[in-house]
Amino acid sequence: MPTHPFNPVVLLGRIEHQLVREAMTALAAHLRARGITVLAEPGAAAALGDGVEPIADGDLPKRARLVVAIGGDGTLLRATRLIAGHDVPLLGVNRGRLGFLTDVGAGDMLERIDEVLAGRYVTEARMMLRAELARSEEAPVTGTALNDAVLQKFEIGRMIEFETWVDGVYLNTHRADGLIVATPTGSTAYALSCGGPILAPELDAIALVPVCPHTLSDRPLVIRAGRQVELRLLERQATKAQVTIDGVLLGEFLPGDRLVVSAAPLRVTLLHPPGHDFYHVLRSKLHWGSERGKPVRDD
Amino acid sequence: MPTHPFNPVVLLGRIEHQLVREAMTALAAHLRARGITVLAEPGAAAALGDGVEPIADGDLPKRARLVVAIGGDGTLLRATRLIAGHDVPLLGVNRGRLGFLTDVGAGDMLERIDEVLAGRYVTEARMMLRAELARSEEAPVTGTALNDAVLQKFEIGRMIEFETWVDGVYLNTHRADGLIVATPTGSTAYALSCGGPILAPELDAIALVPVCPHTLSDRPLVIRAGRQVELRLLERQATKAQVTIDGVLLGEFLPGDRLVVSAAPLRVTLLHPPGHDFYHVLRSKLHWGSERGKPVRDD
Amino acid sequence: MPTHPFNPVVLLGRIEHQLVREAMTALAAHLRARGITVLAEPGAAAALGDGVEPIADGDLPKRARLVVAIGGDGTLLRATRLIAGHDVPLLGVNRGRLGFLTDVGAGDMLERIDEVLAGRYVTEARMMLRAELARSEEAPVTGTALNDAVLQKFEIGRMIEFETWVDGVYLNTHRADGLIVATPTGSTAYALSCGGPILAPELDAIALVPVCPHTLSDRPLVIRAGRQVELRLLERQATKAQVTIDGVLLGEFLPGDRLVVSAAPLRVTLLHPPGHDFYHVLRSKLHWGSERGKPVRDD
Amino acid sequence: MPTHPFNPVVLLGRIEHQLVREAMTALAAHLRARGITVLAEPGAAAALGDGVEPIADGDLPKRARLVVAIGGDGTLLRATRLIAGHDVPLLGVNRGRLGFLTDVGAGDMLERIDEVLAGRYVTEARMMLRAELARSEEAPVTGTALNDAVLQKFEIGRMIEFETWVDGVYLNTHRADGLIVATPTGSTAYALSCGGPILAPELDAIALVPVCPHTLSDRPLVIRAGRQVELRLLERQATKAQVTIDGVLLGEFLPGDRLVVSAAPLRVTLLHPPGHDFYHVLRSKLHWGSERGKPVRDD
Repeated sequence: MPTHPFNPVVLLGRIEHQLVREAMTALAAHLRARGITVLAEPGAAAALGDGVEPIADGDLPKRARLVVAIGGDGTLLRATRLIAGHDVPLLGVNRGRLGFLTDVGAGDMLERIDEVLAGRYVTEARMMLRAELARSEEAPVTGTALNDAVLQKFEIGRMIEFETWVDGVYLNTHRADGLIVATPTGSTAYALSCGGPILAPELDAIALVPVCPHTLSDRPLVIRAGRQVELRLLERQATKAQVTIDGVLLGEFLPGDRLVVSAAPLRVTLLHPPGHDFYHVLRSKLHWGSERGKPVRDD
Repeated sequence: MPTHPFNPVVLLGRIEHQLVREAMTALAAHLRARGITVLAEPGAAAALGDGVEPIADGDLPKRARLVVAIGGDGTLLRATRLIAGHDVPLLGVNRGRLGFLTDVGAGDMLERIDEVLAGRYVTEARMMLRAELARSEEAPVTGTALNDAVLQKFEIGRMIEFETWVDGVYLNTHRADGLIVATPTGSTAYALSCGGPILAPELDAIALVPVCPHTLSDRPLVIRAGRQVELRLLERQATKAQVTIDGVLLGEFLPGDRLVVSAAPLRVTLLHPPGHDFYHVLRSKLHWGSERGKPVRDD
Repeated sequence: MPTHPFNPVVLLGRIEHQLVREAMTALAAHLRARGITVLAEPGAAAALGDGVEPIADGDLPKRARLVVAIGGDGTLLRATRLIAGHDVPLLGVNRGRLGFLTDVGAGDMLERIDEVLAGRYVTEARMMLRAELARSEEAPVTGTALNDAVLQKFEIGRMIEFETWVDGVYLNTHRADGLIVATPTGSTAYALSCGGPILAPELDAIALVPVCPHTLSDRPLVIRAGRQVELRLLERQATKAQVTIDGVLLGEFLPGDRLVVSAAPLRVTLLHPPGHDFYHVLRSKLHWGSERGKPVRDD
Repeated sequence: MPTHPFNPVVLLGRIEHQLVREAMTALAAHLRARGITVLAEPGAAAALGDGVEPIADGDLPKRARLVVAIGGDGTLLRATRLIAGHDVPLLGVNRGRLGFLTDVGAGDMLERIDEVLAGRYVTEARMMLRAELARSEEAPVTGTALNDAVLQKFEIGRMIEFETWVDGVYLNTHRADGLIVATPTGSTAYALSCGGPILAPELDAIALVPVCPHTLSDRPLVIRAGRQVELRLLERQATKAQVTIDGVLLGEFLPGDRLVVSAAPLRVTLLHPPGHDFYHVLRSKLHWGSERGKPVRDD
């Protein structure tokens, strides 16, 4: 019998949360009953027991044929970091309310998984960013992000000052709390809180969203994904800056440093149940609370 | 002697404005001295005299090899309407301060024109929108827009309620003053005043920007230019709505009507002087007031 | 037996809506059973029958000792217009979800009314605006508003241009779709959709909120309620403007006209059930969805 | 001869900036020529020489009869900290472009000073905030601010979660980068960059402005100055928060800590040249670029 193309499955989740552990337990049993090998990080594997095999983070992208992230969008972001650069599909299961990325609900998780195993799913390739933090005479630090690369002040509450360049052409000098370089996926995350637009996932574009800019006309700009964005920090008294990618520290950012952000060569593949509808997720997550063909109220 | 590829040139402008008339007069003389036939709308031709030939709006796209719009961005928008569907390039001359579209200044207009006639220019193809306003049992009304198609309340100060659909998929039901469907070109016009993002002109995208939405999370959405956007008005007491394209009335919008907006098949070709830099125009128009390599202030 | 201080009660509502009619019917019977005379507008009185007496709008402020508005905030706004200048308290009953002003729910309406009749209620005096639209050589048109006085473009989608003056001192020249002069009560209505701040009802202040301003730094301004705000329209081609107060047309606004807005001499008295909490209403209406002492999520 | 009521004058400025030093030098000579004793911080006094007496920060509020802050708004903020709780008036001189607080230009500084010495000036009392950071079993840390008290995340790019209470009544639970409690003076500083409204200086109010809130309807709220605002941080993984007042660190903010902000008992007195006009400063600082009676453009 040929093995299933999604065999083995890696389950990823914060096992210390009860709802997550319950979902992981149910899912592991369900998969194993279907002859699928189930892997998990060592701590989670020990907690799950019952035939779940431990796997080191470094081996994960090589062995996994499917990663199921159980939890919130933060867990799915961590999954993308683990498999970055490898062609392993991801499926997100939300243990509570719907997430932008974890769009399988805990309630019908097992039915949905069976659909996916039976080959009924939609794949979606999401663009990722590659960020390189370069400092003269040091090796650059690099990382990839599904949501965003963020330059931001820290420690003292004063704004920073930095230049933006696009494909080597000067764009602007910003005085702000920071700047977000966001993918379409990231456009509904932190960038949205900072006044950025929603970019449809299909769009081959990135958004530059200033964070609390001093100049009120310093507005979000959307450019082609193929462009290379460069940020350079200017000297300014009593300020400190750092760069994070998907909320994880890439490094401190000093005057003279350069942060170069561009589309990563590899996309990540998300699996969705059939009938996945981004607009439905939007309406749900943003509490638009509307139904088609029906007035919102008759007041 | 073969004729010049830009011969004849049509000059377009609001001749009743003194600064515009002066610029048109100087330009007409300059072009005729170089052997170029100069055409203008009948009223303007009469005012300019001195060999400028009148041309009816209907003949304009057939005869013109280049249209020079002198004035503000509004004049250039009118030029695009006149030549819509024909492959005639446009050059915009600003009689005062720089415009987003009219990026040749009045000061060095003649030198810039000479450069263009000598073949030194950059061409840029800008997407246009096609809007179709359809009412059951009536022939639909259509039009094209370089900036935007706008659905908006009028007459009484109450919000309207309408649905948005993208390629036949339901997006949302909005209660708002209206909604703007903007091209990248239009993203720096009305849409910017309503909280929309700036889209780089190169981007193959359109922005849906709600105008004063009742639901605070009803935020601008950017989608691929290839999509078809449809708006449907819901019945709501004591409200009236209309549709404008580039600020010109397309028609009243009644409950049951459908407004369908998509990318127009033909793009418009803008000519720019060498060294044209969209980011420079942005900095100038939005008063970002920054210079590269220099802190904005040392306070 | 001395009559009850709230006798007679006027019931006000859009009787053509079934939910409203049901609530009015129940309320009328309940009040009459307690010996209270119930009045209603002629159409509503006829529909309610059963001892409800018709009253002309002109007589309403003289006879009513309490007005109960049943419906949405729009119905309560209409009630304030009917009793403007008279010291008649208002109680708002919402026939569906909670309103900012109609904070008695339909579910416990009868218990709440009994509490109010028994003297258990909180009174709140809300500031109103007086708007005067003055045109040279014509008698000025005046009106009062609980929410806002709004200057706004209409008919054609082009922005208008107007000056603002505060107590005779020049403030700014705006190019925008309009400007809202809002009370604290109105700050959670249309002004909020236009980017205005929320003003606590207790605050003796008014907000000037530009609608879709062309200049991105043209931001909402909050001033003392004692100030007199004056708007003057500038001549601008192909634009038309109008003034509405609480969504009702006050008049067309022509170049040269002056709109003068200031706090009205009389406040309106709202009655609330005991325990009324403005912040609770805010959380509910704006879907903040939080509970004290509890994290919003643990993701 | 009785001494002048403004004798002695303290000059305050960042002496290491050449433009500031030049202005301080000219001002010191000018004042001494008029018989006024000139004091400065020790380093500045040494640099200025020529009879300028050094004064320790601690003695400053006791001896000074007038403090002239030369530089930007940051220097004036420092001056308010030095004299907090003492009734010493402040005059701000801008060494470059106009500031919101430093509204005497360097160009006519000496004439303006002579006017002030001759008694021709306007006084303005600006509200200040008192912030108290309380931790169980530790003595609370307190400070005063002219602009704002700011709770903000730091170190790691994740939002914090905290509750707001007003006079002991629960307002909301926010997930955001932080929250600004701003005076009218501070409303044109950091709060404006975060979407807050402009509060006229005359207004007896404070604004609560969330910084990049996760919930899009979490909007700025303006309340009476007499209210007491309390912030409480909720436990949340991998976040750190701090409190700054006027940009200066008050302390780290830990789960369980309480930040209590209210109007300070003493106001600070600003002196302005005759004809001071807050709206003029607004127009200048926000680049509104308009003139009364004149259309902004005729395009």
